[in-house]
Amino acid sequence: MKNKVVSVYGYGRFGKLWAGLLAKDFIVKVYSRRGLTKNEVEYCVNIVDEKEIFNCDALFFCVAISSFEEVLIQSKPFHNKKTVYFDTCSVKVEPAKWMKKNLPDKSQVIATHPMFGPDSYNLKEKLPMVMCNISANSKEFDFWVQYFLSRNLDIEIMTPDKHDESAAYSQGITHYIGRVLSDLNLSPTIIDTLGYKKLMEIIEQTCNDSWQLFVDLQKYNPYTRKMRTDLHQSIEKIYTYLNADNKI
Amino acid sequence: MKNKVVSVYGYGRFGKLWAGLLAKDFIVKVYSRRGLTKNEVEYCVNIVDEKEIFNCDALFFCVAISSFEEVLIQSKPFHNKKTVYFDTCSVKVEPAKWMKKNLPDKSQVIATHPMFGPDSYNLKEKLPMVMCNISANSKEFDFWVQYFLSRNLDIEIMTPDKHDESAAYSQGITHYIGRVLSDLNLSPTIIDTLGYKKLMEIIEQTCNDSWQLFVDLQKYNPYTRKMRTDLHQSIEKIYTYLNADNKI
Repeated sequence: MKNKVVSVYGYGRFGKLWAGLLAKDFIVKVYSRRGLTKNEVEYCVNIVDEKEIFNCDALFFCVAISSFEEVLIQSKPFHNKKTVYFDTCSVKVEPAKWMKKNLPDKSQVIATHPMFGPDSYNLKEKLPMVMCNISANSKEFDFWVQYFLSRNLDIEIMTPDKHDESAAYSQGITHYIGRVLSDLNLSPTIIDTLGYKKLMEIIEQTCNDSWQLFVDLQKYNPYTRKMRTDLHQSIEKIYTYLNADNKI
Repeated sequence: MKNKVVSVYGYGRFGKLWAGLLAKDFIVKVYSRRGLTKNEVEYCVNIVDEKEIFNCDALFFCVAISSFEEVLIQSKPFHNKKTVYFDTCSVKVEPAKWMKKNLPDKSQVIATHPMFGPDSYNLKEKLPMVMCNISANSKEFDFWVQYFLSRNLDIEIMTPDKHDESAAYSQGITHYIGRVLSDLNLSPTIIDTLGYKKLMEIIEQTCNDSWQLFVDLQKYNPYTRKMRTDLHQSIEKIYTYLNADNKI
């Protein structure tokens, strides 16, 4: 496969991980709006400019959800039809819409969500990756499904809507709890139970990601408002129950 | 050590685990107010009545926090001075007071909190156990410290007050989060992130313990009210922040 040219647009925490994974099997180009120097990228990837990044067989957008639509609009002069386009956002309904609206007509588009990051990625476990076929032909889509399966990922094919509903109550709630507990400035004690240790790991893992990702996860997923309302109701229920007992 | 007779008063989920551990090194007697049959106890322990359970070298109370003071009062006719008394409650200030008040004058009393339960106990990790010397002589106290160290436990000697302050923000908060999330009826999805899997483990582990233990942890620890207020403030802060943004 080494003759396929694959681009990674965006080189933050996730883009760096993603480019490194792809570089094992493809010729990989990377581009970031902030500018990149050789020292900060993996030795096996090539830094190119914004025009050149679109000259490839497949392009993965690895940008913040909140800047993705703007990136699509501003990079329009460089788009071309032969490229297969992927996003890797942690929400799917809105990014899929933005890609359909702003990429060239009849482009092949695949929306994805690799459900891991630099802190949770490991080779020991089969990690899940969601793939939604927006407008790719079945041969192209199948090629990528088979490729990611061969990388030990657990591919789940679903609609963007189904993804967002499910992720709001799993990934969304985990980040929410992590941020709340982080605000409490909890720290390890000499008498930590195993459960508390797991809680500390959740705080560390979710808070290593940017605050922007946390806000975007809540803001651009149509199901998180209901999740937050449900969670808040459960919190109030337990809080009121305990405080109602005068002895507590 | 096999000639030391050690009693376990109470045979719930924790009492059963504890009696089994002690039976590796001591002659162990068990008693429960609900009555016990041979089928439900480990083969290596002896079922006795309430009078006989106090006829021993050392006695561990493994009863619910909320019934502990009543147990101490009602069993007074059977107490004797030669026994070294231990509790194993998950809070320490109140149980230590109850033991001092209700056990015979000049009894040797040691308050303990083995910081694990049937779900988290394992031999792979050094698990923490808190010990507070209330009124034991140093030779007796040291014997038990050395014994538990030899069982691969990580012994932390501290005051009941220090324990309760620290445990409110570690064990207390973990059980609180576990119960709130359990109320939401979350379930595993095919796209669980590693963080969400940890959250599910916390729910399972804390909710395997009784609702009574959860309420008692909150009710009898003088520091949990502040913990709940602090947690509630952080929750409100994040909730308000996200809802204030009209786009979310």
